[in-house]
Amino acid sequence: LSENDILFLSKALTFWDRLNSEEKELITKNLASIKYKKGEAIHRGENDCIGLFVVKSGTVRTYLMSEEGKEVTLYRLFERDVCVLSASCIIKNITFDVNIDAESECEILLINSSVFFELVQKNIYIENFSYKIAVDRFSDVIWAMEQILFMSFDKRLATFLIDEATNNNDDTISLTHEQIAKYMGSAREVVSRMLKYFANEGTVELLRGGVKILDKSKLRYLLK
Amino acid sequence: LSENDILFLSKALTFWDRLNSEEKELITKNLASIKYKKGEAIHRGENDCIGLFVVKSGTVRTYLMSEEGKEVTLYRLFERDVCVLSASCIIKNITFDVNIDAESECEILLINSSVFFELVQKNIYIENFSYKIAVDRFSDVIWAMEQILFMSFDKRLATFLIDEATNNNDDTISLTHEQIAKYMGSAREVVSRMLKYFANEGTVELLRGGVKILDKSKLRYLLK
Repeated sequence: LSENDILFLSKALTFWDRLNSEEKELITKNLASIKYKKGEAIHRGENDCIGLFVVKSGTVRTYLMSEEGKEVTLYRLFERDVCVLSASCIIKNITFDVNIDAESECEILLINSSVFFELVQKNIYIENFSYKIAVDRFSDVIWAMEQILFMSFDKRLATFLIDEATNNNDDTISLTHEQIAKYMGSAREVVSRMLKYFANEGTVELLRGGVKILDKSKLRYLLK
Repeated sequence: LSENDILFLSKALTFWDRLNSEEKELITKNLASIKYKKGEAIHRGENDCIGLFVVKSGTVRTYLMSEEGKEVTLYRLFERDVCVLSASCIIKNITFDVNIDAESECEILLINSSVFFELVQKNIYIENFSYKIAVDRFSDVIWAMEQILFMSFDKRLATFLIDEATNNNDDTISLTHEQIAKYMGSAREVVSRMLKYFANEGTVELLRGGVKILDKSKLRYLLK
């Protein structure tokens, strides 16, 4: 690990200044830097408990999956965000399990479960940080829930397209209708129907394996 | 406040032993015991921040409400449960707002926001407890979300009826189809259709303003 990684970590983990030198050493000696390809699984539900990680680069997607394979995206994490649901075996009152995928090429810095367990036991500020991060995600999840349950589908799809374009800094969204449906916890037919409607209005252009936004102001108008 | 209230509080608030005598006095001198009638509002979204409370008796329901008045129940709290979402103005990273109602006649012990704020500032164990309680509720919410998004409606309705009967210790559920729909975040038509189906199967009997469970084993069978 480079000096830069340690510096990066110390900024992401806001409890850093509360650590004694022994605890700092425990982290830096055991820290792993791991790369994932786009679409690769980082954490798989109840069978996994990799530990706490910080996103060094790329985008990470956290989602629920039903027994039938239906997915609902809960939130995304970006550079310097901390993931604690991947250490749910340590934070005992997180009684649910999520899936975590690399949405783009990713690199993470991982503090494995056994080291994390030792730290949480020793230092109240680390436990506190972990709960705090979990509560941040709680807020994200309520937002997602309100979107899914309360927002009409045209608004949701408009929000999704704008967010994707903004995140990738590209008005062409390279996702199939099937993939969009999966990310939105919806059905392909529903997505296709609405995209066709948007295309007829001149808001988007449908491409092979993607969607191009032609008129962002029309999408934004839907959200008013 | 009686000695019993203080004893009750000290058991519900697991940080009690971490308080110094000054902090204990701050709580007990400012503690309010409040009674609510069935159906009364305890906390109303973003306009409210009453503080942290412990349920002394009765059942409290927490739910989201859309702009159009659609409701989705997140979880219920029972005797000795602690509510921290009613103090979301103090826990800064709770960025969402919920509604909290007395589902039955209720009594709560309330630590108001300004006292709670002072305590959280002073004592890391209180802050830690608050986050921990919020993470408990996070787990409840994910459970509710999985029910709503992944479970077929017959299973959800069966679960709802069984839970209501168990909570009230009465196989007659005194709720209209409209109310059941509201609690389940569904539409009245959907509830009515499924209840009619259950009635045809001899599982329930439809009453004026209520539903009587005739065959619990049939409802339970749906959940397998």
